[in-house]
Amino acid sequence: MSKEKKPRKSEDSALKEEIKALRERLLAQQQQIREAKLPIIVLIEGWSAAGKGSLINELISEIDPRFYNVISPVITPEAECRYPFLYPYAKAIPENGKIMFYDSGWMEEAVRKLLRREITKDEYKKRVRAVNEFERQLRDGGYLVLKLFVDIEKKEQRKRMQALRENFETEWRVTQDDLWQHREYDAFRDAYESFMDKTGKTIPWHKLDGSNKRLAARDALQLLVTQVDEALAAGRFIGKPFSEKFPLKKMPKLAEVDLSPCMTDEDYKKELKKLQKRLGELHNVIYRKKIPVILCYEGWDAAGKGGNIRRIARPLDPRGFDVIPIASPEPHEINRQYLWRFWTRLPRSGHFCIFDRTWYGRVMVERLEGFCSEDDWKRAYNEINEFERQLTDWGAVVLKFWIHIDQDTQLARFNDRQNTPEKQWKLTEEDWRNREKWPQYEEAIDEMLQKTSTENAPWFIIESNDKKFARIRTLRIVIDALEKACKEQLA
Amino acid sequence: MSKEKKPRKSEDSALKEEIKALRERLLAQQQQIREAKLPIIVLIEGWSAAGKGSLINELISEIDPRFYNVISPVITPEAECRYPFLYPYAKAIPENGKIMFYDSGWMEEAVRKLLRREITKDEYKKRVRAVNEFERQLRDGGYLVLKLFVDIEKKEQRKRMQALRENFETEWRVTQDDLWQHREYDAFRDAYESFMDKTGKTIPWHKLDGSNKRLAARDALQLLVTQVDEALAAGRFIGKPFSEKFPLKKMPKLAEVDLSPCMTDEDYKKELKKLQKRLGELHNVIYRKKIPVILCYEGWDAAGKGGNIRRIARPLDPRGFDVIPIASPEPHEINRQYLWRFWTRLPRSGHFCIFDRTWYGRVMVERLEGFCSEDDWKRAYNEINEFERQLTDWGAVVLKFWIHIDQDTQLARFNDRQNTPEKQWKLTEEDWRNREKWPQYEEAIDEMLQKTSTENAPWFIIESNDKKFARIRTLRIVIDALEKACKEQLA
Repeated sequence: MSKEKKPRKSEDSALKEEIKALRERLLAQQQQIREAKLPIIVLIEGWSAAGKGSLINELISEIDPRFYNVISPVITPEAECRYPFLYPYAKAIPENGKIMFYDSGWMEEAVRKLLRREITKDEYKKRVRAVNEFERQLRDGGYLVLKLFVDIEKKEQRKRMQALRENFETEWRVTQDDLWQHREYDAFRDAYESFMDKTGKTIPWHKLDGSNKRLAARDALQLLVTQVDEALAAGRFIGKPFSEKFPLKKMPKLAEVDLSPCMTDEDYKKELKKLQKRLGELHNVIYRKKIPVILCYEGWDAAGKGGNIRRIARPLDPRGFDVIPIASPEPHEINRQYLWRFWTRLPRSGHFCIFDRTWYGRVMVERLEGFCSEDDWKRAYNEINEFERQLTDWGAVVLKFWIHIDQDTQLARFNDRQNTPEKQWKLTEEDWRNREKWPQYEEAIDEMLQKTSTENAPWFIIESNDKKFARIRTLRIVIDALEKACKEQLA
Repeated sequence: MSKEKKPRKSEDSALKEEIKALRERLLAQQQQIREAKLPIIVLIEGWSAAGKGSLINELISEIDPRFYNVISPVITPEAECRYPFLYPYAKAIPENGKIMFYDSGWMEEAVRKLLRREITKDEYKKRVRAVNEFERQLRDGGYLVLKLFVDIEKKEQRKRMQALRENFETEWRVTQDDLWQHREYDAFRDAYESFMDKTGKTIPWHKLDGSNKRLAARDALQLLVTQVDEALAAGRFIGKPFSEKFPLKKMPKLAEVDLSPCMTDEDYKKELKKLQKRLGELHNVIYRKKIPVILCYEGWDAAGKGGNIRRIARPLDPRGFDVIPIASPEPHEINRQYLWRFWTRLPRSGHFCIFDRTWYGRVMVERLEGFCSEDDWKRAYNEINEFERQLTDWGAVVLKFWIHIDQDTQLARFNDRQNTPEKQWKLTEEDWRNREKWPQYEEAIDEMLQKTSTENAPWFIIESNDKKFARIRTLRIVIDALEKACKEQLA
């Protein structure tokens, strides 16, 4: 079979010429990619011994090393098993103006796990859904995503594996895993086809004939060069908003919330002690059962987020938890899809992390200050719901708190900060400016709470005119959710 | 023993008061630490079950979570075994104005490995040296480093471990490793003492009495608060330069280098093919033997670094290598010790990485543009030699190339770039400005080559007026070094 496919000498040299010309076009595009700040993902999946590595080498051979990178999730450290399925891939997305080549990726990972029965069919389905979401979010965020599958037949695979194994220097390249794939060739073919079928709607798959390496290289280069040209001509792509139905919890409007609840010092102290003790115990269980916990804090300036967080953190073992303060994104963060800086900060399974401000900045400050387009923030509700569903599918407990106060209370606290020397640093000009935009923020927050309080990752409005009440209420919510999670995992 | 130490009720409440007062001082210092951009490292070592975790909790309980972080190298992913010993610690250093608490660190790691005989005595000695270098470099870079050892006696340790094991919820906290430490208590004591003795000269160790948790907390807080006050009063510390004797290779001055060597097209093509084939084979061996390879490229603008790097990269398997372009540091990089952004980019063992510009920016552009103080760049020669020795002690092959051309050749290439549209982006105003400073750069480079071409990590001046000659020469040097490394590891 492979013999017949081998091109004749003259065809071969014609191919060589074509490849050369395509490489030159890619070389010329390099600078345009950079100027247009176009981020590019090239995912190369395919059979073991199909020649993915040498294909990548053909693609990159003329590109300036400053413009691309290659990642091989195959050799992803074991440790990343303690993160969500897509974590290593999300972590590796390129910044604007650069190309990232994935030397096999989410397809191989999902298919192998399925065939090994390391995940259930239901988990597999969730992964397929997550992949579709992930790819669409990248495309909608302006990424050019090119997906290639390098195909070879079983006979050809056997021939190549044999050749590798006969040479002492290359023998180690054929792993037990590869041999297993060869034995299970038919099952793999079905699984690959089915995966491509289920994930080819938003961003299509392109099959390359791996039996002829030069042909495969030509085709891959052609696809890349053509799609780059198209993307450059079309200008930065911004996905349109759309909404999928998520099971939502009914949330009140902020204006309807009764902020009068309060607590005596005595009750507070007693409750605090009791609840912190219980939370400390639960942290042990969480750690042992490897349940990841993600608490998200948002709230008005001076609402008491910091103090609330400290009361949660107090009983936790510092080895197993982290508070992650989120400020304005740094340049290397702005240069990537907006969820990237949160993906990279996720806790390991069994760990506890508290985000002090979150990805919801997208639909609050970024919306109101015009840091992103209207389509961007409107799309974000759905994207965030998807992201959080991926987290809870992974097994995480995700709880979101809106720490709420009224305008009078904020003013009183601002004044107190201004008049207390050791608190002055907490109050900035920006806080006063934000305060002036209270009505616009309130509208945005109401919309956010309506659209993103999912059953799996619910919002809680925490009445914080009385900070003591707020702390106790938050502790109780966290404890309830953890007790439920521990019980469920036991069952 | 521990019973006797238990303070009476009145002492205890006095301690509580003290702790409260110290915490308030720390709270007030927070803002000053931030304003003074003082980075702080608190290393907490000590016996298993000595209460390191709860001590950290005492220290952080009032600090705003935005100002500190806790890292527990105990649970460092296995994957980091494929990096140098200090890698996880170097990666975690705080940025300016923040505190990082290490919940056990380099001492525990070194001592355990020694007692388990996982490293030889000689390797242990090298690690002790590396620790001293690492701590001094941080101090000299303006870090406040506080080292605590939480001490308990054998009897007390047994009591605590028993208590933990009797409770179902805490049982898992006592690991086999902890029990082993308890059995080997005396050997551990000797090893800890010896380690502290050998690493206490530059930055002293402070022992805390772990048998009384409240006392230990008071003492730790006191030390921290006092040292922060001192550091704030003294202003940013900048270490003085000093030089240790490293075995250096004699390097010629740049002006003495004969740049006439060149090569015919025919010879070049033949040699290139042969050498790239050989390099590809060696990459296999390197990968299999888990030898890390670090190639460092520096050179005049337009000297041909990019093309040279591409010729090395061409035959390498993209799964096992990376090109790392180094541009001006980003804000989160400037905010840390200058080697941090290189530490975090080191390759895994068995991998090949090429730095396109390196840490030598410190003694070239940063020196000449005044981005650091004179003491800073003068100190850097020694610091860099130490850093590179840590890399080669880890087993890395480190080769450094100065890609050299003369001023006329540079001018010709600049003009060519200016006149060729697809090359124009490669030429910036800065390149012209740098060119005007050729004599100052030449002086700095000569000094750099004299002072940092160590036997273990040598410099090679690559004559690159003829790029073909330069590429072949670099390939040969790389191949020779890799062949030697593969042979040595076999022996």
